[in-house]
Amino acid sequence: MDLNYIEHIGIAVENLEAATAYYENVLGLKCYSVEEVTDQKVKTAFFKIGQTKIELLESTAPDGPIGKFIEKKGEGIHHIAFAVNNLEKQLEDAATKDVRLIDKTPRKGAEGLHIAFLHPKSTHGVLTELCENKEA
Amino acid sequence: MDLNYIEHIGIAVENLEAATAYYENVLGLKCYSVEEVTDQKVKTAFFKIGQTKIELLESTAPDGPIGKFIEKKGEGIHHIAFAVNNLEKQLEDAATKDVRLIDKTPRKGAEGLHIAFLHPKSTHGVLTELCENKEA
Repeated sequence: MDLNYIEHIGIAVENLEAATAYYENVLGLKCYSVEEVTDQKVKTAFFKIGQTKIELLESTAPDGPIGKFIEKKGEGIHHIAFAVNNLEKQLEDAATKDVRLIDKTPRKGAEGLHIAFLHPKSTHGVLTELCENKEA
Repeated sequence: MDLNYIEHIGIAVENLEAATAYYENVLGLKCYSVEEVTDQKVKTAFFKIGQTKIELLESTAPDGPIGKFIEKKGEGIHHIAFAVNNLEKQLEDAATKDVRLIDKTPRKGAEGLHIAFLHPKSTHGVLTELCENKEA
């Protein structure tokens, strides 16, 4: 595979408003976007720091992936996302190296990116997202 | 506080050699340094991706912080580290905003950096490291 940089870090939070207040007032970052991703059952808030974004994720339903994560593990870091070119080719490459794919083909994520997840069972415990910005 | 960029992401792994093989052979990153940090009871391997490093952490003792983390949660993302200037001032700032400090004063971490940790109880579940490179 060929990874360009860390596009974002996804962090599961109980309450987006309270967490955003911490990221802004304590850490000194600035929320530049809030977006709901209905098929993931999340509301997200984005912050930019250097080359990378922080994506806070609040569940909008207990049975969504973030709701289940928080129930099991509490608030905390949920996934890492790498920026790539040619996402389809990266997924093929991962599959040939016996990585279990959560998404066999790319789908639409937040910010209009094409995304796909690799299963943490294949990645030493790290839920790993690959994202491609086709408009870049 | 004033954060510059994400200096590294710390990832707890069971076996540094096996995890390094995944990061090199599957993800296509290159390990540029292996270092033991005895007071943290860890062996670390570093990879660079864009502006950020990935720090894999294998425990050298079951009672060390990474040993305990893996026992409780399994392999996975352990902490995020932000690069800062004037670490002492950042810690003062955090303390005035009621953030619980694990390290009230900076100590030496891997790669010769001055580091201090903020407690996840104060940071919406994210074990947060601040690091300053005084030689930069």
